[in-house]
Amino acid sequence: MGKKIIRNFGNTALPVTIVGANVNGKPNFMTVGFYAWVEYNPSIFSVSIDKKQFTNQGIKENGTFSVNIPSEKMMLVTDYIGLKSGRDIDKTKIFDVFYGDLETAPMINEAPVNYECKVIKTIDFNGSSDMFFGEVIKSYADEDLCEEGLNIKNIKPILLYFQKYYSVGSEIGDAYKVGLKYESK
Amino acid sequence: MGKKIIRNFGNTALPVTIVGANVNGKPNFMTVGFYAWVEYNPSIFSVSIDKKQFTNQGIKENGTFSVNIPSEKMMLVTDYIGLKSGRDIDKTKIFDVFYGDLETAPMINEAPVNYECKVIKTIDFNGSSDMFFGEVIKSYADEDLCEEGLNIKNIKPILLYFQKYYSVGSEIGDAYKVGLKYESK
Repeated sequence: MGKKIIRNFGNTALPVTIVGANVNGKPNFMTVGFYAWVEYNPSIFSVSIDKKQFTNQGIKENGTFSVNIPSEKMMLVTDYIGLKSGRDIDKTKIFDVFYGDLETAPMINEAPVNYECKVIKTIDFNGSSDMFFGEVIKSYADEDLCEEGLNIKNIKPILLYFQKYYSVGSEIGDAYKVGLKYESK
Repeated sequence: MGKKIIRNFGNTALPVTIVGANVNGKPNFMTVGFYAWVEYNPSIFSVSIDKKQFTNQGIKENGTFSVNIPSEKMMLVTDYIGLKSGRDIDKTKIFDVFYGDLETAPMINEAPVNYECKVIKTIDFNGSSDMFFGEVIKSYADEDLCEEGLNIKNIKPILLYFQKYYSVGSEIGDAYKVGLKYESK
């Protein structure tokens, strides 16, 4: 199989998240694909947020943020808040907002899963964004989904690959198990 | 909608990657879901790798690593290399390995997309892993896929949600566009 040098990066599906932060005391939200789960214990997430973003300002203001996992049915509003800045539109009434222990990390009731995070480190790679590391203080999920059994089929997260959104497809195997069937060459 | 406090984290699909590094001069690989695209320009990826892993040792040895995007048809071998350590099995012959400019970041010919990365920063959060930040020096893709037009439908990446693997599902909307249809409350 021949290889070709390509100019683009990140050719895999990114999980779409909505990051929330209070800016000047009001809830603000933006769409973020540059997200990772960094560490299990303590549980740490990272999000990279453009320095010009209103949300970036809010995270620095309070040292807290939320990560919300939007479901497919929230696709339009998820895209909308990524297109419009909190400087130009009032984002306080778009979602039913709730707060947890940290009191300054606004979370989205409509999103099936929410995490409130406390900033424990910030890195600036001299690019366009700051990378914020947040320790997850508490996690929330819809009661209804928890009753059904919280899983990816009822969370229905959105994926991003460059200019397109995708759903999660079918289950294809058991992790940490199917590999046992692999016969070494 | 009521909320319940849950004890788990990371309730969204993680893109599965295979990270490569030379250990004692030999190619070694492991499965990694704790991956992120951190910055566009320069293009920076992060991967979190358990300190006990052989691959972790190799990344520190050479200051280089690769990120390979396995396709669905590579699911068994992708899981296999995550189950077995390079300390116990010889991983040098599992894949058709190639090297690029960095010369010490082994890449997988069978994987549709490959990135060679130079370590620019390492963070230890006093947890079980180190987080390595790599600047992408060069990206590679299968010539055949490039001819078809490289996209997520021919890359067919694997997603991970806790103990299960998933495929990418159907396209559900145009990013940075469908939000225009959203009517503000």
